[in-house]
Parts: sequence; C-alpha cells; structure tokens
Amino acid sequence: MVAERLDGKACAAEVESSLVPRIMALKSKGVEPHLAVIIVGEDPASKVYVTAKQTGCERLGIKSTKYSLPADVGKEELITLIQTLNADINVHGILIQSPLPSVMDEIGLTELVEPNKDVDGFHPHNLGRLVQGRTDGLLPCTPSGIIRMLEWAGVKLAGARAVVIGRSRIVGIPLSLMLAARGYDATVSIVHSKTEDIDSICRDADVLVAAVGRPGLVKADWVKQGAVVIDVGVNRVLDSNKEKGWSLAGDVDPGVSENASLLSPVPGGVGPMTIAMLMTNTVFAAEQY
Amino acid sequence: MVAERLDGKACAAEVESSLVPRIMALKSKGVEPHLAVIIVGEDPASKVYVTAKQTGCERLGIKSTKYSLPADVGKEELITLIQTLNADINVHGILIQSPLPSVMDEIGLTELVEPNKDVDGFHPHNLGRLVQGRTDGLLPCTPSGIIRMLEWAGVKLAGARAVVIGRSRIVGIPLSLMLAARGYDATVSIVHSKTEDIDSICRDADVLVAAVGRPGLVKADWVKQGAVVIDVGVNRVLDSNKEKGWSLAGDVDPGVSENASLLSPVPGGVGPMTIAMLMTNTVFAAEQY
Repeated sequence: MVAERLDGKACAAEVESSLVPRIMALKSKGVEPHLAVIIVGEDPASKVYVTAKQTGCERLGIKSTKYSLPADVGKEELITLIQTLNADINVHGILIQSPLPSVMDEIGLTELVEPNKDVDGFHPHNLGRLVQGRTDGLLPCTPSGIIRMLEWAGVKLAGARAVVIGRSRIVGIPLSLMLAARGYDATVSIVHSKTEDIDSICRDADVLVAAVGRPGLVKADWVKQGAVVIDVGVNRVLDSNKEKGWSLAGDVDPGVSENASLLSPVPGGVGPMTIAMLMTNTVFAAEQY
Repeated sequence: MVAERLDGKACAAEVESSLVPRIMALKSKGVEPHLAVIIVGEDPASKVYVTAKQTGCERLGIKSTKYSLPADVGKEELITLIQTLNADINVHGILIQSPLPSVMDEIGLTELVEPNKDVDGFHPHNLGRLVQGRTDGLLPCTPSGIIRMLEWAGVKLAGARAVVIGRSRIVGIPLSLMLAARGYDATVSIVHSKTEDIDSICRDADVLVAAVGRPGLVKADWVKQGAVVIDVGVNRVLDSNKEKGWSLAGDVDPGVSENASLLSPVPGGVGPMTIAMLMTNTVFAAEQY
C-alpha cells in the first residue's frame, strides 16, 4: 500500500470558499469581520504565521489589524491593548501569536481575551465547553481543522480507534476531547512521553495523530495497514542541501506511507486547515456579535 | 486472586482530618468557610446527596446553608439567588444539586456561578483549566476523589494504562484529563457506548474506571489479572429481598474481584471521596478569598 495524500490545502480552500457568502451576508448588514493579531518580539516563525493569517484574511475580505509590540513591552501595556480590543465593537476576533517571550505568562494573557472574541479557542471558558462535550463554539483551530479534514476525506470516526500522540493544550488534549465527543464518537487513547509500549498502542489505531514536535518519531512499524495518519509536527531539521540550512520535517517518518492508507503531510496538511479554521472562527465570532 | 477492597471511606476520613487545621486557621482569621447548597424540586436521590453534603460540613465545622426551591421555581428567581450568593462575601462555595428538573438548563445555570465559588468544579472555566493540564484549582469532586484514593493506596499511575468507561462531563472526561496530565502521567483511553471491542480494550487496563450507570456492565473477563478497578456507578436495581424493593449496584460485576487486585466498591468507595473532595474545595475556596 502507498498512502494517498490527505490534501489539507484542497480541503482548506473548500472551507474558505464556504465562508464567502457568510462574509458577504455580514457586510450587507454593515458588519465587516475584523481580526486583531498581537505579535510580541521578533520570533521569525511567529512572523511567518502572522503573515499567513493576515494573507488568509485578505483572501477572504476579512479585515485584519496587526499590533507589533517589542519583546520588552510592559505587561501593563499589553493588558491595556487586550482590554481596548475587547471593548472595541468593531473587533470580532483577537489572537495573541504564540510563542510570547518566555518571561511572559502566555496562559494568563490568553485568559484576558473576551471568550467570545477568542478565535484561537484557547480561553479556559472555550476549552471547558469541550469537556462538557459541546463542539459548537469557538474551537481551537488545529484540532478542529484535523476533524474537518478527516470528515472531508470520508474517514469513519464513529467507533474507530484514534490514538493521539501528545497532550498539549493547543492540539493533543482538545483534539482528543473532540474525537471522543458525541457526534464524532471515536474511541480515543492519549499517549505521551511517559507512555510505555507506545508503538504497540499506535498499532491499534485506525486514526493516528502525531503532535509532539519530534521529527520522524512515528515509524512505519508503528502504523497498522490501512490506518489514516495525521502529522501535526512542524520541526526544523538541519539540511545542508538547502540554502537556508534547514528544512521542515513532521513527526511522522515518510516511510509510514508504506502502511497508511491516507497521510496528511508536512507541509500542506494541517497547516492550511489551521488558517481556514481561524477564518471560520473569526466569521463565527462576527456573526454572534 | 481475590481483590482487596479499596476503602474510600477510610481514605475520605483521612482527607477530612487533614482539613481540620486549615479550617481552624481560617476561623482564627475570622473566616468561617461557608457552603451554599441549592436544591430544586423533590428528587429523592438529590435529597439524600444534599443531606450527606451538609452532614459532611457539620462534621468539620464548615457552615452550610440549604436553599430549597420548588420544582416550578421561576428561572429569574433562581438566577437572582445565584447572583446574590455570588456577591455574598460570607459565602465561599455554591453548589447546585444535580439533577435539576428536566425543563431547566442545568449547564447554563452552572455557568452563572462565580468560577472561584464553583466548588463542584463544573464551570467551563474550571473544566478548561484541566484541558490546559492545570490540576491545582477547583477540580470536579468525583474525579479528584478517585485520583486521591488511587494515590492513597499507592497505585502507580505514571506510565500505567488507564481505561475510563464513560464520557460524562462530571466524571469520565475530567478524570481522563487528570490521569493524562503531567504529574499523573497515565496513558489514558476513553471508551463509551460507541466503542467496538470494549472488553478487549478494558483488558489492557492497569487501572479501569467504570462510570456509565449500567449495573454489572464490567465482567470478570474484562479485567486483567491484578488490575485496579474503580466502580463509580450508582444504580438502583430491583431487589425483592429488600423492604424498599431495590438495592444499590455499581457498574462492576462483583465477580471482577476474582481478577482485580484492588476494587473500589459501591457503596463505600467513590461516594465518601466525593464528599471529602467537596469539603476540600470549599476550604480551598475560602482560603483563596
């Protein structure tokens, strides 16, 4: 078997297209969906992400405003900005680009964003709804993008064994909750760095998601014949063949395509879906306003 | 092998004892920990639970006040009561006894309770902290009681395979998150009514928790030799030998004790732990005030 490519880019394009009439309906009511993006410091990867998000907005006619703050910005100034954006009726979504400089309390700052403008879906109030089994609000973008992509590809989730490698608050845990929720109904196992026999647990998976940030962690013999594999890892690895000296690698070894039936690659898989779901959340937030 | 009894009552007594000096310290600062319990309607099981909770308070010198409202109480009246208790600086914990009459929006009402007085740990804000891997706040009482009981009995959780049967917002999901969190580090599988081969997945478990409300669901051959089994089910089953016509049965068949090494029974296991953790949350809430 050679895995088919799970084309996140194509799925993302469909998701974005479906937003166009909703954006037009909003504008015809005088509402221009508006995303505010806060970036602190000069992290190069953060800049790339922010540009991709603003380009997504432009593509769809969503207004976006970038607030670039220096790495040594005072906490008070950052808090004041968040509060101002919370209070601004013309701003529907607020996003604080991760990572923040390490001295800052990223989770604490996230909690200052109004839950109904939290288009990243990271506020505890929005995460807590997932624990209640409610998947109808502002959902974290990467996990909801993965689910959307699986549905788009016709992957059966109900009753399927799903194994999620990684327990981050951004991907692994919220994705596990969504997969296990009523309506999706997968049987979910959460595995992580302390798991014993991780390869044998992974071999039980019909749907295997790797979200840990360890290049090439998942090998071919971890994957059952015919399994669907989603690679969420975005790792920079040394690559002397590239002028810049590195290339991107996922958490999944390319050899996995021998066993998997469908494989979402890095890049071109989960990345575009994350942007598409951010756009979806921004439109949703504007509609609720 | 005949399973040893995991004595929730003994563990709960220790937990409660450990609260006594904290309660005395609060009182010496002029703070009397105070739990407000709201009960709506005449559900007999609810009355039993509320009495048990108030008795727990009495035992420890925690003040409790019961607000009994008729089943047909207006929504506005209920909301006003919650808001009054939220604003009352002499009330540290607020609990709305479940189940509410079916016409009422139980989750919506829970969200009106101030998160820092939410001693049930059911507010999305408190549940969301679990998704972030934070286990230091107001945690749902039954899951945190189970974890406490497992630690008390010296059960190794790090790297252990834990299988949680049931995906309720009250027990199954928050317990799964706690078990998977850093510091506990179990490998967790969440199984439910849509799971295929549930018995074979359960046989992988070092720690097996049944929280679905189906009497006798878990049979001896679902349990690996030496596994630790926690029964959360509280089911009324017809019993002509009893004057009242019924008796309590858990989700775990008594025959499981042939295979398990430790078994938390119903009654006498998780029940007392739930009360002890409610007391713990109330003291914690008073300390944060």
